[in-house]
Amino acid sequence: MNVLILLGHPDTGSLNHALAQAVRDDLRAAGHDVVFHDLYAERFDPLLGSAEIPERGQVPPAIQAHCDELCAADGIVVVHPNWWGQPPAILTGWIDRVVRPGRAYRFEEGDGGEGVPVGLLRARAAVVLNTSNTEKEREQTAFGDPLEAIWRRCIFDLCGVRVFHRRTFGVVVTSTEAERLAWIEEAKALCRKAFGPARPASST
Amino acid sequence: MNVLILLGHPDTGSLNHALAQAVRDDLRAAGHDVVFHDLYAERFDPLLGSAEIPERGQVPPAIQAHCDELCAADGIVVVHPNWWGQPPAILTGWIDRVVRPGRAYRFEEGDGGEGVPVGLLRARAAVVLNTSNTEKEREQTAFGDPLEAIWRRCIFDLCGVRVFHRRTFGVVVTSTEAERLAWIEEAKALCRKAFGPARPASST
Repeated sequence: MNVLILLGHPDTGSLNHALAQAVRDDLRAAGHDVVFHDLYAERFDPLLGSAEIPERGQVPPAIQAHCDELCAADGIVVVHPNWWGQPPAILTGWIDRVVRPGRAYRFEEGDGGEGVPVGLLRARAAVVLNTSNTEKEREQTAFGDPLEAIWRRCIFDLCGVRVFHRRTFGVVVTSTEAERLAWIEEAKALCRKAFGPARPASST
Repeated sequence: MNVLILLGHPDTGSLNHALAQAVRDDLRAAGHDVVFHDLYAERFDPLLGSAEIPERGQVPPAIQAHCDELCAADGIVVVHPNWWGQPPAILTGWIDRVVRPGRAYRFEEGDGGEGVPVGLLRARAAVVLNTSNTEKEREQTAFGDPLEAIWRRCIFDLCGVRVFHRRTFGVVVTSTEAERLAWIEEAKALCRKAFGPARPASST
């Protein structure tokens, strides 16, 4: 199946890069067709402009290409650190610009734009891999873990992607190398399971 | 008092601009010293780079100036649309780059960076003004309103700003001009009340 992987972290030596690259290589080894975007390395421009906002707005070719990949994906993986309960701005901007009306979701006919959206993405599953320096319990009790609502409810559920897995690895800053290696293996296993075999068994 | 206003919306004809400008002018009329940033108009660069992440990292002068303003503020107003339960990327990036360790918050001595942060901001109150095209009840039940947790808990409570007000105006797309004018008056009144008189009454 077609898997789209998005990575949003500036440091090429980060755990985020290790996670995203390991998942990419493992899914390719399993026979999946993987599109991989290291958004910082590609200097993705995260700023949505006025002319781009309307459904029939002026969308640059580079953003159209991102939209095409999103719409063609059977599975989606997003890898990023938890910064202030949000993704880094480069990934927030990918959402702002690429998850477009008429492509990823639509509103009911005759609706003025305030109504209930209908998801249009064909992807059957999404996996979000986060890293954090906050203890899990504190993230819940002190901060309310807004990233869970953002990815699960505001984005993937709205766009029709019903199977959602999210795993936050941490505390990164005090972790051992053995722990980080185990997290990478866990991320690979999670994605393999989420997306299943690359092709139906009957076709082999 | 010193009030910092941040605006994150690309369309100069938007309700967001009208709200931010009205609040700015009204607070100035009341005698407050207002610093106003239209982040799109100023082409704020929202991408936090690796070298900037450490507490003693390489912070460009323009970002240092933003940090100085944030630390000098007695009151903070943030104006932006609800995009996917998050601020637009330009404002997410302002948070990533400007709300820095050692300036807006710190960790306890001897802490490895995974522990409980201590807020350092002197601002006594913050106001977040959002616009939305989603009905209030649906925002709560379907999406969980992650913006509330982001601003109240993840940012302002962490940085020591204990008085927090947030108002979401909407549904914008179906609103009348009279409704929008009333929202602008409401925003002005909310900010005047949140920040109180510009100087203590005894000094007049």
